[in-house]
Amino acid sequence: MNAPTPHSHLVPEINQRDVPEALLAALKSRFGANCSTALAVREQHGRDESSFVAPPPAAVVFAESTQDVADAVKLASDFSTPVIPFGIGSSLEGHLLAVQGGISIDVSRMNKVLAINAEDLTVTVQPGVTRKQLNEAVKSTGLFFPIDPGADASIGGMSATRASGTNAVRYGTMRENVLALEVVTASGEVIRTGTRAKKSSAGYDLTRLMVGSEGTLGVITEVTVRLYPLPEAISAAICSFPSIEAAVRTTIQVIQLGVLIARVELIDHNTVRMVNAHSKLGLREEPMLLMEFHGSPAGVKEQAETVQEIASEFGGTAFEWATTPEERTRLWTARHNAYFAAIQSRPGCRAISTDTCVPISRLADCLLDSVKEADASGLPYFLVGHVGDGNFHFGYLLDPNDPKEREVAEQLNHQLVARALALEGTCTGEHGVGLHKMEFLVTEAGVGAVDMMRTIKRALDPKNIMNPGKIFAM
Amino acid sequence: MNAPTPHSHLVPEINQRDVPEALLAALKSRFGANCSTALAVREQHGRDESSFVAPPPAAVVFAESTQDVADAVKLASDFSTPVIPFGIGSSLEGHLLAVQGGISIDVSRMNKVLAINAEDLTVTVQPGVTRKQLNEAVKSTGLFFPIDPGADASIGGMSATRASGTNAVRYGTMRENVLALEVVTASGEVIRTGTRAKKSSAGYDLTRLMVGSEGTLGVITEVTVRLYPLPEAISAAICSFPSIEAAVRTTIQVIQLGVLIARVELIDHNTVRMVNAHSKLGLREEPMLLMEFHGSPAGVKEQAETVQEIASEFGGTAFEWATTPEERTRLWTARHNAYFAAIQSRPGCRAISTDTCVPISRLADCLLDSVKEADASGLPYFLVGHVGDGNFHFGYLLDPNDPKEREVAEQLNHQLVARALALEGTCTGEHGVGLHKMEFLVTEAGVGAVDMMRTIKRALDPKNIMNPGKIFAM
Repeated sequence: MNAPTPHSHLVPEINQRDVPEALLAALKSRFGANCSTALAVREQHGRDESSFVAPPPAAVVFAESTQDVADAVKLASDFSTPVIPFGIGSSLEGHLLAVQGGISIDVSRMNKVLAINAEDLTVTVQPGVTRKQLNEAVKSTGLFFPIDPGADASIGGMSATRASGTNAVRYGTMRENVLALEVVTASGEVIRTGTRAKKSSAGYDLTRLMVGSEGTLGVITEVTVRLYPLPEAISAAICSFPSIEAAVRTTIQVIQLGVLIARVELIDHNTVRMVNAHSKLGLREEPMLLMEFHGSPAGVKEQAETVQEIASEFGGTAFEWATTPEERTRLWTARHNAYFAAIQSRPGCRAISTDTCVPISRLADCLLDSVKEADASGLPYFLVGHVGDGNFHFGYLLDPNDPKEREVAEQLNHQLVARALALEGTCTGEHGVGLHKMEFLVTEAGVGAVDMMRTIKRALDPKNIMNPGKIFAM
Repeated sequence: MNAPTPHSHLVPEINQRDVPEALLAALKSRFGANCSTALAVREQHGRDESSFVAPPPAAVVFAESTQDVADAVKLASDFSTPVIPFGIGSSLEGHLLAVQGGISIDVSRMNKVLAINAEDLTVTVQPGVTRKQLNEAVKSTGLFFPIDPGADASIGGMSATRASGTNAVRYGTMRENVLALEVVTASGEVIRTGTRAKKSSAGYDLTRLMVGSEGTLGVITEVTVRLYPLPEAISAAICSFPSIEAAVRTTIQVIQLGVLIARVELIDHNTVRMVNAHSKLGLREEPMLLMEFHGSPAGVKEQAETVQEIASEFGGTAFEWATTPEERTRLWTARHNAYFAAIQSRPGCRAISTDTCVPISRLADCLLDSVKEADASGLPYFLVGHVGDGNFHFGYLLDPNDPKEREVAEQLNHQLVARALALEGTCTGEHGVGLHKMEFLVTEAGVGAVDMMRTIKRALDPKNIMNPGKIFAM
């Protein structure tokens, strides 16, 4: 992995506090071999999938229980030292970087599925359980957990960043699918934020305050999420279009008609070309929609016909349908391999990924103008999108050793975000703010709303030890 | 309306602060005739649909704009005087009572539909718009707003209490359907809590912190909610069952199978009897399910067949189907009139309504034992439920002048809540905490979680002026 040159304006608050030797000694004494200060371990916990760099945390505690987390946080609190929760490290916006120093609490060993309540369509897991592990664990019940952000992320991390992904258009995001959490607060206390009831009006919605708080308000130590019956029938389809606009207009109409489509993903012609080169798929090198329908056999057929009709009106061609799991996997290969195919298309490059999300009717306006800008910039890029939700990702492929290219990429991102906000959208549909979107957040939410976030943070974490320096500056 | 004897243990924090004459003078000067101190107006704003009583607020400000609300809150803040937002007064748990004195801000004149974005399936309204008015306003777009708590509540009030109702089983609650809010904070500042994007990971979820906060963190002055395409086909059905258990077991199986039922409501035989007496419906006086299916004609037919098959297995009989709006309205009469029919079955009575919600598999356990207890108590009651969500309401019909009966009703409620919590449910599925469930909330959420709510409240409302004395004691 090439370490990019750090750009201080992208890591606004590198202000590492000293981690006292006495804390390290206390952690060693409490956790023994489960507390590591080895450089390789610390470095592995001091980065994520973003291109940011910062000095690594001073130690990594491998927690094996809620009590471990609570004890680690209490010790850190005693020494006013930052604590950064770590799942599997797949976050994208610098969430895991120790910009103010401190220790990392790795919860990946807390990976037990605690209770499968199939009869209630819920499951309770420890935060280190990954989404694939979760789905494997519930498979025999005929249920599944639909949230699929691409990476095999941990459920704790997905909760912390309010993740979503390809199935969100039908099943919602972590916001809609987390029922309850157990959380270790900044003082090391353990609280529960909800019950297994499907709905509740019992006081402040602490569950949803924690979901998306990126570790800045507490460490998630248990998650109860909703499950769904595996659809009786699943049908996947790909369809090529004469232009991105045609693919996008098809999507808009599908959503506006209320078709219960389970997935609708855009891949632009550039990216199809990269995927063809990478995976020898032989796809038409045109903009493409990948779709999936869930339901009864008759229902799926009906949805698919409606969508095919709409697509045809916009010039959609080369429909390919798949109903068996094997065929579906083949169709989805293009989407699943897009990121890696893109990265490999330019050896040594790093991707800067955008994440805007706009109301569905604004999708064409937001996307098409940004495509023009990206094309004009000369920077190679890939473009994929959860377009049914109005959410898409440009990945600008830049030479990490060329500050000029990074500047161009950041400029494109800025323009895209400004456009999305003007169209009543958000700077981040699913990746979170982390380090990268702190300025965008102020523009989007306004000073007053960010001040309110800050006030909540200050009240719940008076020593500012929970993943400090993320989402907003204090 | 019979004023019940107040029971101090039910209104734990009557501690009225003085409202300074100088504040009243300032409000009169700012708002003129839109600030009323007439006793009748104050009394009308000092109660809700609960049976609690407290002295009325000292004044009522009829706000006509966000600026009005901000100015009223700023003045109240200057004098550290409580502010109680008022929509249409349909809340059920004492939310509107001026238990600590103060002024009421009536937002019912803020009743404009600000922006119908049919192409995005969203609408933005002022808080005084009621759900019927909203649906009337969007009717011509082919869209609708599904949340139906029974009363023609204001959208602001529904947001503040995290309301839901009959359609929630399919469309979710206010939690899932509010996209963004404008809120006047405790200092009189105006903030926005979200955008019109369908999903976002941009910082703390202030929208959902405000939804369900019962006016204790701010006054909602604008609400953006999701809309849905009117289903191509709607089919309603009623079905009688030999026992409540049979009706409940049918419901559980329907939900577990993942049938996308839009409504599934239970009415017990007592309540059917009351409704027959009230509305001459001639229904079989047996436990009954009312159901509704939304979708394509074929999809609706398929769902209905699945459900009818399940119901038949549990002894369901006397199916009646309705597809035209008129026929559907007739079938739903029993449900819509249940409350009034029950109240009229015992002249002069008041109802104490329960609101527990449990995971679907626990519904039978929770409900059947509580029916036994209610029957044994001798107190008349009605029983209706959004059973598809595991949520149901006993309405104990008591003589407001008989403290003994109130005690019996409260005892039944206590036992029911204890049972629901033991079954991993919640004390309130949709009505909120208000004054009535403050103790239950502590049992349910735990001291630590309620302390966290209190810490947030203290941080965002340091003078404790926003609807104080509700949800939790400070």
